[in-house]
Amino acid sequence: MGITPQQFSQIQNRLAQPKRAPGPAFDSSPPAQTQSVINQIVLGIDPSLRGTGYGVIQAGKPRSTSLAFGTIKCPSAWERSRCLVRIAQTLRDVLREHHPTMCAIEGLFFAQNLQTALIMGEARGAILATVAEAGLQIFEVAPRKMKLAIVGYGAAQKHAVAKMVQRMLHLADVPDPDAADALALALTFIQEQNRFSLSGPRKV
Amino acid sequence: MGITPQQFSQIQNRLAQPKRAPGPAFDSSPPAQTQSVINQIVLGIDPSLRGTGYGVIQAGKPRSTSLAFGTIKCPSAWERSRCLVRIAQTLRDVLREHHPTMCAIEGLFFAQNLQTALIMGEARGAILATVAEAGLQIFEVAPRKMKLAIVGYGAAQKHAVAKMVQRMLHLADVPDPDAADALALALTFIQEQNRFSLSGPRKV
Repeated sequence: MGITPQQFSQIQNRLAQPKRAPGPAFDSSPPAQTQSVINQIVLGIDPSLRGTGYGVIQAGKPRSTSLAFGTIKCPSAWERSRCLVRIAQTLRDVLREHHPTMCAIEGLFFAQNLQTALIMGEARGAILATVAEAGLQIFEVAPRKMKLAIVGYGAAQKHAVAKMVQRMLHLADVPDPDAADALALALTFIQEQNRFSLSGPRKV
Repeated sequence: MGITPQQFSQIQNRLAQPKRAPGPAFDSSPPAQTQSVINQIVLGIDPSLRGTGYGVIQAGKPRSTSLAFGTIKCPSAWERSRCLVRIAQTLRDVLREHHPTMCAIEGLFFAQNLQTALIMGEARGAILATVAEAGLQIFEVAPRKMKLAIVGYGAAQKHAVAKMVQRMLHLADVPDPDAADALALALTFIQEQNRFSLSGPRKV
């Protein structure tokens, strides 16, 4: 049984419309943004007090490209407040140089105890304030979702993520694990925005 | 049995030396700063995502005076990142206007669960980064120690703290509870620095 010319043109019209990320069906997170990320510059961040990873990616088809990445290292002898200042200032330099418009940050993390959660929260707070003040939209990407998107396995090791990131972005070397996680979060966010998804990343 | 003139002069010499806050005897926190706070301007902060209290106090003898205080309110509809920007920007205004040199922030808090600890940590992180970037030394004051110092009872209610703060600073009205806690933290820090103490406030 064929389709009529009228049905055919209806399908053509539907396909010609921009793809959209509809509201989530089964969870309470707000609907994802519908704007396209192609040619947008996305900042990925893997927050940590002593080693925050960051990665800046220009979204593109067929391939996204890495503009910058690195790890903000703070010696363990430094006071926490000094680390937070270093993180904020380094990110401000990155924002000034590359002008990303969107940020994908690791969300739904697991902490061993309240003290760890508090310290991790402090790093996230300094980062969120800095990035939001620069006007970026910020989205949380769950680490499990990132591993599934990049390696195809939600409990993948850090090194496996780094190797895949190297291949996807055609990098000369395997990036530092924290920087690789940040690049992977940005790549996952770009993939998510470019396809039909039941539950988009959560805006924070 | 009396004391000899030699013993008497030894005691006199000891008393004439500047008071110091020695290293803690039973915990691992680093020794407190020994510099005097008299005439210093101290910023007290009670961190919270939706209602951070702040208070600026000029340390003095016999009485310290309040220069400014308030609560940084953020509606519950706001995204977390937006609240953090509001907190950072308001504190930057306060720092610019009053030029405090030291900050007393609530430490050793209690969170009901990891999610609460994370959100509380985010507020603290945005605050610590902002205050440390302005060059202030930051000290943590445990809420129990603050209540003990201000009300004389470690589990005092918020309202009791606010009433005592009003009396100590000769304020016309009872301050908002969050602002009162911030003023009380600054007052406790000033008291601590002015007397012999076994465990001084912890630097962060």
